[in-house]
Amino acid sequence: MEKPMKTSRLEAFSDGVLAIIITIMVLELKVPHEPAPTALAALWPIFFSYVLSFVYVGIYWNNHHHMMAVTEHANGAILWANLHLLFWLSLLPFTTGWMGENHFARLPTVLYGVNLLACAVAYYILQLSIIHLQGSDGLLAKAIGRDRKGKLSPIFYTLGMVGAWFAAPWVGMMFFVAVAAIWVVPDRRIERVVGQQQKSR
Amino acid sequence: MEKPMKTSRLEAFSDGVLAIIITIMVLELKVPHEPAPTALAALWPIFFSYVLSFVYVGIYWNNHHHMMAVTEHANGAILWANLHLLFWLSLLPFTTGWMGENHFARLPTVLYGVNLLACAVAYYILQLSIIHLQGSDGLLAKAIGRDRKGKLSPIFYTLGMVGAWFAAPWVGMMFFVAVAAIWVVPDRRIERVVGQQQKSR
Amino acid sequence: MEKPMKTSRLEAFSDGVLAIIITIMVLELKVPHEPAPTALAALWPIFFSYVLSFVYVGIYWNNHHHMMAVTEHANGAILWANLHLLFWLSLLPFTTGWMGENHFARLPTVLYGVNLLACAVAYYILQLSIIHLQGSDGLLAKAIGRDRKGKLSPIFYTLGMVGAWFAAPWVGMMFFVAVAAIWVVPDRRIERVVGQQQKSR
Amino acid sequence: MEKPMKTSRLEAFSDGVLAIIITIMVLELKVPHEPAPTALAALWPIFFSYVLSFVYVGIYWNNHHHMMAVTEHANGAILWANLHLLFWLSLLPFTTGWMGENHFARLPTVLYGVNLLACAVAYYILQLSIIHLQGSDGLLAKAIGRDRKGKLSPIFYTLGMVGAWFAAPWVGMMFFVAVAAIWVVPDRRIERVVGQQQKSR
Repeated sequence: MEKPMKTSRLEAFSDGVLAIIITIMVLELKVPHEPAPTALAALWPIFFSYVLSFVYVGIYWNNHHHMMAVTEHANGAILWANLHLLFWLSLLPFTTGWMGENHFARLPTVLYGVNLLACAVAYYILQLSIIHLQGSDGLLAKAIGRDRKGKLSPIFYTLGMVGAWFAAPWVGMMFFVAVAAIWVVPDRRIERVVGQQQKSR
Repeated sequence: MEKPMKTSRLEAFSDGVLAIIITIMVLELKVPHEPAPTALAALWPIFFSYVLSFVYVGIYWNNHHHMMAVTEHANGAILWANLHLLFWLSLLPFTTGWMGENHFARLPTVLYGVNLLACAVAYYILQLSIIHLQGSDGLLAKAIGRDRKGKLSPIFYTLGMVGAWFAAPWVGMMFFVAVAAIWVVPDRRIERVVGQQQKSR
Repeated sequence: MEKPMKTSRLEAFSDGVLAIIITIMVLELKVPHEPAPTALAALWPIFFSYVLSFVYVGIYWNNHHHMMAVTEHANGAILWANLHLLFWLSLLPFTTGWMGENHFARLPTVLYGVNLLACAVAYYILQLSIIHLQGSDGLLAKAIGRDRKGKLSPIFYTLGMVGAWFAAPWVGMMFFVAVAAIWVVPDRRIERVVGQQQKSR
Repeated sequence: MEKPMKTSRLEAFSDGVLAIIITIMVLELKVPHEPAPTALAALWPIFFSYVLSFVYVGIYWNNHHHMMAVTEHANGAILWANLHLLFWLSLLPFTTGWMGENHFARLPTVLYGVNLLACAVAYYILQLSIIHLQGSDGLLAKAIGRDRKGKLSPIFYTLGMVGAWFAAPWVGMMFFVAVAAIWVVPDRRIERVVGQQQKSR
């Protein structure tokens, strides 16, 4: 029978990958060769998309942090579900760069939405695989509860992609910004459960 | 009610991001294709700005290290205040590169000062959010005391930006170098408090 | 006499290097300057080779994780065997990029196989040097058992290289994909031994 | 009075920086656009200098690892001495790239020696600042003993620089390779002291 292992090194590796993703995105902000204000101003689409993706990676790090706080053990399925999530997150520097470089053109904006959606699905799979190990009365399942945000996000991403393609890219961006705004508020449900657990010790 | 969490993973993630920022700045030092001394000499402005930013990231790492030594728990506000600080620090490779590439021209030098100021403000917000959690009689509040350096730095950055814009870039640089010099001396106030705490255990 | 040391920092350093390798490979996916679908489609060989190498680094991280779970101490030979493994893994971004950039041409595909083989040999040496320290009745030796996968992989890599050179590159790729598929299933042997050990405590 | 702090985060940050330095050096190995053997063969000087610098960063990581194993506390001076060492190590990707790119021309080879010498001096200062804190009868002082390798290396680097400048670059390289070879043998003195300490517990 398969036995679970400690999650500490899983966290360390994920922190490393997330730290690198969040930082190498800034390399897309190519240093202009002229000291002119116009050279700087021309970078605004890349800068704006950098800020948005920075916030998204920050959200994933925060949520990952909270998720692992109620996850003591991991099995092989969880290790791979985690790598799967990191894979989609690792594509963010590319899709962010393509969208910024092309001033939020239609196709790159839709692809950015596809990437965000894939990250959300991968996160959901990771969550499921942990709940599968802990059982439906485990800490994570309790902490997540009805998971409204987690269910709302993919709908918003899809609406954003549809909006970007059929209406205008800025319509899509509004949805992507909205989801980020919803998540920046930290996940108090898990904090609550962790707090109660610490009290009862 | 929101419950605080351990800061260990916050530290690990911040260490990762700071380590990457401090290291990728060297990528702006593009390897010359000729082995000539002139090719090397032409890099001095980029090298000098690299050294200055290396020292600044080192200062932030040191101070962050000391701050976290008296901070055992974090809440959502602290997590985001920390990411906000990392965001501004992550722009340093860009502003450093722009300033060095353009031989300390006026606008890039002022922008470098803006970046330094933004980092200082973000650090101050992080400090406030920790003190808010610990209370005004908490360890960090005691350790910081009147926080003279923390209050002096933004004034110096502002003077530097004004000087770089209206007088000459090197005037601004003098202020930026001066702030770095003030901070390189490690924060003995916190070391003192930590020391006393360890003694009393 | 030489004395063994704790492996915790060995793990931290390896995690860092593996996290960077897995993430910088995405930099080979150069952001196209046009928002056209053709510009994106042209990237498929680089994307496919990125996915394969991502999976391979993930496999090495997983196996390294499992190996270190049954290795408490390290000596100088183990430290260098570990660095030797990291060296060959650090070349993967280069060989992956060369293969993708040249649409799986014959020579780059063979070189990719050489790199994979070198990683496998380096991993095997690391395994041997740990078993040498622990003794043949140690935890790792027990956990590995007959090591069928470890013995099969180099044969498959060799067949892949021969196939890529004499038949066609896609023949070689099939072998490289097959080995990855075999390994994605996590190493249950070690999980079993760790589990039994935890039970007996 | 200044009080010492734990070294664990110092180690984590140093591991991060060293992991990034050792990995981004491979980015100098630019992926050729042709699948031809000549395109690969043209990279040999960059490859060779990459291998040498990889070994050097590996040596520094190993020795740093051993040094920190006998160092429990750090003060401000140690933190900055450590950052100073990381600074010179962070320049290795640049000097390595310049030397490789220019096929071991005279000036780049001498500069590489300068960089190695600066790293050695910075390491020595870090060692001194730890011994200053621990006292001359402390663990590190005992572990190092007469420090023959540490005293021999700067002499060899200097001979290498002189040889590269006045005789031929390959003469210098021989000295740089020789020092690496001397150090690859791990520092058994410290391992011995740590071993004895663990025994006596």
